[in-house]
Order: sequence, then structure tokens, then C-alpha cells
Amino acid sequence: MIPDTLTTAQYDTIYNIFSLVIASQLFAALFMIACLPRILPRYRQAMCVAAVVCGIAAYHYFRIFNSFNNSFQTDAVGGRGSYSQVVGEGFNEGYRYVDWLLTVPLLLLELVAVLALARKLQTSLLLRLIPAAALMIALGYPGELSGDNGIRNLFGTLSSIPFVYILYVLFVEVTKSLDNQPEQVRKSISQLRLLLLITWGVYPIAYLLPQLGIDGAAAWTGKQIGYSIADILAKALYGLIIYRIARIKSFADDPTFAASELSKSEAMELNPRRDEDRPIPSGAA
Amino acid sequence: MIPDTLTTAQYDTIYNIFSLVIASQLFAALFMIACLPRILPRYRQAMCVAAVVCGIAAYHYFRIFNSFNNSFQTDAVGGRGSYSQVVGEGFNEGYRYVDWLLTVPLLLLELVAVLALARKLQTSLLLRLIPAAALMIALGYPGELSGDNGIRNLFGTLSSIPFVYILYVLFVEVTKSLDNQPEQVRKSISQLRLLLLITWGVYPIAYLLPQLGIDGAAAWTGKQIGYSIADILAKALYGLIIYRIARIKSFADDPTFAASELSKSEAMELNPRRDEDRPIPSGAA
Repeated sequence: MIPDTLTTAQYDTIYNIFSLVIASQLFAALFMIACLPRILPRYRQAMCVAAVVCGIAAYHYFRIFNSFNNSFQTDAVGGRGSYSQVVGEGFNEGYRYVDWLLTVPLLLLELVAVLALARKLQTSLLLRLIPAAALMIALGYPGELSGDNGIRNLFGTLSSIPFVYILYVLFVEVTKSLDNQPEQVRKSISQLRLLLLITWGVYPIAYLLPQLGIDGAAAWTGKQIGYSIADILAKALYGLIIYRIARIKSFADDPTFAASELSKSEAMELNPRRDEDRPIPSGAA
Repeated sequence: MIPDTLTTAQYDTIYNIFSLVIASQLFAALFMIACLPRILPRYRQAMCVAAVVCGIAAYHYFRIFNSFNNSFQTDAVGGRGSYSQVVGEGFNEGYRYVDWLLTVPLLLLELVAVLALARKLQTSLLLRLIPAAALMIALGYPGELSGDNGIRNLFGTLSSIPFVYILYVLFVEVTKSLDNQPEQVRKSISQLRLLLLITWGVYPIAYLLPQLGIDGAAAWTGKQIGYSIADILAKALYGLIIYRIARIKSFADDPTFAASELSKSEAMELNPRRDEDRPIPSGAA
């Protein structure tokens, strides 16, 4: 599956995109930590999880980057020419599965946590989503390792069952609980689920490529690019949408907090009825 | 494009200036994080973004520095003589594009965020500025990779279109919204835009050098120095001006905060009408 040689353009593109993922995940994580005081305490758990997800992804992409860097080498000056696999070094695709095994359940936890639903409903959702997510990744792994298309198909199909179940929970069950959320939050949740559907869809497509006979250096380069972009969107961008939801909910919950976080004109737009009779919330940082 | 050999002076200069960029960006980022409590919460989002931009730049200059360090080597004792490209290692110019793809949209976000305009106007500005910035960088990349002047010209020209559009938005549309800003802020915004125009202007000039027949080791060294200085000004200095704007606006918004941050005489100068009838803002950290 890993090609014996890559052109310089292919090598450079993979090299740069892996670095792009490291930078995106690392600094998304740091941004989320730095911005914790910008949301109410009740939403900070979700943000901490989002930051951890991006941090874990940054760590694994460091590993992937170094593994890639050690596996291919050119013998031409200035990197002109092509890159060949180094004997004795193998590019380790398994890092991705280790990463997903940790981050995918956490991504679902973020989503449920930021909704701040009733505890009973939260527990019920998480008890179904998290095992399904772990199962989905674990079932994909034997297929990824196997060179045999039959085994790939088998585990690919098994892995799709929990994936479809997760989609069912998110699009049917979670939808029922959105009625109490502010309008803008409902919109953001829809964006989030759509992002999840599109980006998670990249993984099975990349997984299927060898079955479809699409192989070789170009397809492999495409797969690495696809995984990388999907990882940026599914973790960093996803986390930033979670942050946006947490901000909107914080402002809606606590007009005093909104007033300190927003300019006068922004706060007026968001909470035109500031003098409304609502309990004064505490905990504005 | 990358010269086969560099003189010791050229090598040392590039080496030192890359290190200068790392130091500038890294400590600008740390300074911005440390100084978050020195501005009101509503401007801290802009400062967090500014810190992230400098952090991302520091990360990429670490990469660029290491890539440069590994690509050239002298065989003379004590580095006297000249440096030649190492077989099997290529200096990776692509890091710059990866950096810009992330930081340039964020630089525009910083600027819009610190103005604290009405939300609708902010969204409208960002929805135009950020895609234009990403497009500008993405269109430059194929030209940078290409050795062919025709392709360079084509992509250079295409890349200029979003650049001109960004300048239009900043100099025409943003200007309209500055009437509500304090006098000193208006001045700082003008400085900021001028800085942006001058520093961003360095990139197309460096890009054009090969077309103008200016090539070889000296021109390449000049290009690296030019990019490095432009990056310090466009990110670290730019972020510090954003910080200054946030300080001025914080003092104007909240005289109590100004009194705690400034000496008595400074505060008097800034807010001569301290006993003015304005609501006492909360949330000053």
C-alpha cells in the first residue's frame, strides 16, 4: 500500500500538509485553553475536552510526520528528483488509529457536553455514543492492516454499523433535545453535525480506495491529504464551532458576562432586553 | 531557485535572522498572553488570536531554521569557506505558505475583532476578508513551486486579485466604520493598515525577483532576509499595535480600569472628564 517512490512534488506536499496539521491542532488547542475565561464555567469542560482532542491530534501528527520523514529519502541535491522508501524504516499508518481511538469518542463527548442537557439525558447519550465510536475505530483497524480485500471489506462493513448508529443518535435523538436551545445554537449544532458527517465520511472513502483499485503513489498522496484535511476540520474547526456555541450560550445565560465580553453595540444586538427579569448569574470570569 | 552554494557570510546571516524571527515571534506571543489581564475582557479574544498568530509563526520558523540548517553544510573547519547543499536534504520553502495560509486570515480576524464593531458588520467583513486571504495564499503556491516564469506570472497575477480586494475592504469599507472609534484608535488603525500594506508588499516583490532575472545566492539571501523582516513586522509588531489599540479602547470604555492601570497623571490626560455620567462597567479583571 505504501508506494516505493514518491515524486518530489508528492513528497513535499505530504510533508507540508502534515506540518500544517501539527500547527493547526497545536495552536487550536492552545487557543482553546487561552480562551477558557471567554466562556462561562459551565461550558469550560466541553472546551477542555476540545483542547485535549486537538492536543492529542498534534502529538500523533508529530509522530506521523517524523515517521514519514524517516521512511523516505532522496539521493539528489536539493531534493530534486524522487524519494524512495528507506530500507529498515516503515511509515506507520497505525498512529492514525491510536489517535482516532482516543479522539473520536472525545469529539462526541464535546458535543454532548456543550449542549448542557439534563444529566440523565447526557449520560444516556454518552453511554451509547462513546462505546459505538470506540467500536467503529477498533473494527476498522484489522481491515486497514490487511492487504486482503475480502478482509478489508468485512471489517469495513462491520465498522460502518456503529457509524450509522452514531449518525442515528445525533440526527434523530439529539434533534429532539434541541428545542430548548437558542436559535443561533440550533444553527451551529446543525453545522457541527454536517461537518461531522462530511469529515467522517472521508475516512471510509479513503479506506475503500484500495478496493476500488485506486492505488499507487498518487492515490496514496491523495489519501494522506484527505486524512489530514479531514482531521483539521473534524477536530480543530469542530472545536472552534463548539467554542462559538459555548460563547453564544454564555451570553444568553448571563447578560452581565455578555456586557463585559462584548462591545456595547454587540451586547445590545444580542440581548436587546437586558433589563429583563432574569436571575443574576454568577461565575463571570 | 535554491542556490547550490552560499558564502559563509550569507549562510551566517540567514541563520541568525531565522533565529531572530523565532525569538521575536515566540516572545511576542508569550508577552501577549501574559498581558491579557491588562486589557478589558472584550478585547482579549483579539489578543488571543494575535498570540496564536505569533506562536504559529514561531513554530514554522523553527521548522524553516532546521530545514535550512540540514540543507547546507561546509566541509571547512570552523565554517570558513562556503556552504554547499547537502545531498538528500532539500530546503523547504513550502513552510512559508503553510504558515501564511493559517496566519494571514487570522491577522485580518485580529484587526476586525479589536474594532469591536456591530456583530453584523463584523460577520460581513470577515466573510469577505478571510476567504480572500486564503485564496491569495493558495493561488501563490503553485507559482512559487514552479520554475517556469510564465506559470509564476499567471499565479502571481491571480493571487493579486484577492490582495487588491482585501486592500479595498480595509481602506474603503473599514474606514466608514471608524467614526465611532476614539481619535487615538483611528490613528492606530491607520498605522496598522499602512504596516499591513508595506509588509504584505514585500511578499509579491520577493515573489517577482526571479522574473526580473535577479537570482543566485545573493538574491536568494536577500529574499530570505526580506521575508523574515516582513514576518516580524506583519505579525509581532502588528500584534503589539493591536495590543495598544486594545489598551486605549479599554481605558476609554472603563475609567476605573484606566485608573488602576495608569498613573494618576496618565489617567487624567486620557480621561479628563472622569466624573462624566457613564455606567460603571463590570468585569474588569
